[in-house]
Amino acid sequence: MKVSPEVREALTALMAEYAMAIDEDRLEDWVELFDERCDYRVVTRENVEQDLPNVLMWCDNKNMLRDRVDSYRNVNEYNLHYDRHVLGPLVFRDHKSSVWSFDVAYSLFQTTLEGESRLFSVGRYAVEVVFKDQEPFFKAVKVIADTGLIPSLLATPI
Amino acid sequence: MKVSPEVREALTALMAEYAMAIDEDRLEDWVELFDERCDYRVVTRENVEQDLPNVLMWCDNKNMLRDRVDSYRNVNEYNLHYDRHVLGPLVFRDHKSSVWSFDVAYSLFQTTLEGESRLFSVGRYAVEVVFKDQEPFFKAVKVIADTGLIPSLLATPI
Amino acid sequence: MKVSPEVREALTALMAEYAMAIDEDRLEDWVELFDERCDYRVVTRENVEQDLPNVLMWCDNKNMLRDRVDSYRNVNEYNLHYDRHVLGPLVFRDHKSSVWSFDVAYSLFQTTLEGESRLFSVGRYAVEVVFKDQEPFFKAVKVIADTGLIPSLLATPI
Repeated sequence: MKVSPEVREALTALMAEYAMAIDEDRLEDWVELFDERCDYRVVTRENVEQDLPNVLMWCDNKNMLRDRVDSYRNVNEYNLHYDRHVLGPLVFRDHKSSVWSFDVAYSLFQTTLEGESRLFSVGRYAVEVVFKDQEPFFKAVKVIADTGLIPSLLATPI
Repeated sequence: MKVSPEVREALTALMAEYAMAIDEDRLEDWVELFDERCDYRVVTRENVEQDLPNVLMWCDNKNMLRDRVDSYRNVNEYNLHYDRHVLGPLVFRDHKSSVWSFDVAYSLFQTTLEGESRLFSVGRYAVEVVFKDQEPFFKAVKVIADTGLIPSLLATPI
Repeated sequence: MKVSPEVREALTALMAEYAMAIDEDRLEDWVELFDERCDYRVVTRENVEQDLPNVLMWCDNKNMLRDRVDSYRNVNEYNLHYDRHVLGPLVFRDHKSSVWSFDVAYSLFQTTLEGESRLFSVGRYAVEVVFKDQEPFFKAVKVIADTGLIPSLLATPI
């Protein structure tokens, strides 16, 4: 579907900030990109394609995201690795009832504190965004990981 | 060279769909992004720089692309791996006789059905696009792989 | 911060050319993207976060960049590897006294002449750009590598 350069600009900027906020360990800023009523989940592609119900991480409102970041902060006194997201261009899907839907491919690299970098995960984000007072907010981010991840309470978002 | 945000938007969207169609195994959609008179080929950077004639894959019209996707469908009953492309921003080269020329860097990751992801290929696309009724179509996509690939009849496009 | 599609277009094109010029071994073109008064340096994220003074590479004006490329040309008669940068979208930070500040995530892959590709470095560019006669030029590029690199006189820029 076709979008204006202004819409691509605003939503590209949102995704770029999503990635950079995680990578710079500004998880509190990352949470603020979401609408109060939102859905963030991490699933594997295998589960999506086989229509299995497994979900690796799931927060169905913004307070759950806040709690998750809080517990991450309490458990991890120090950063155990550096994250680095490199995102591809947005593929727009739909624009209905003021919700923009699009997909973005991602590659996520992790670097140990000793300085070794490796590929951690690849996949795509299936995203829904609403604008409030001309500011975009995430209604839904579904991380569909090609890589068979096993995230845990200790894990940063993807 | 300078382009308008509208041109960057349209051609970025085309490349994003190129990558996502392959990654989602919508190869028939991928073919439809090409003009009837088109040229798709995969070469290695080494061959380009030494001016050698080797071509790893070559379709010089859209029917050959259709045939290739057909035979891929017949040979592979199941998907043997997942592809994931992450593309960089477009570098515009030229705009002559209604053809836009640009280059795009790509990284291509593959994930086994067991969930292991690895780097498969990096390189660049040298692309030519025409607009028909304001819709962009590929006239030429030359995949110039830095990685020394050995694609086969069984392989998905890059 | 918000920017117009025109600004994102111009600065995305600049970063795309930055990466492609290095990857195509057009290092002289790469130098020409900088203002005469400029600062290019490569540091590691560890050093930035611990506020250490170590710098892996540092040129504090354009002539130093020219010299560096010259000595690279003299030492390396042949290319020892291929570089491939894949950049993410720009995260705009600031626009003050005609200087645009933004960050860009990068992944950098290297391929040996035998055709083996591997991840070489990930990190981000912290960039400052000025426009002169409507043409953008780098005032500062700070490469902040997550990966603990040991570049040398023999190394290409990152």
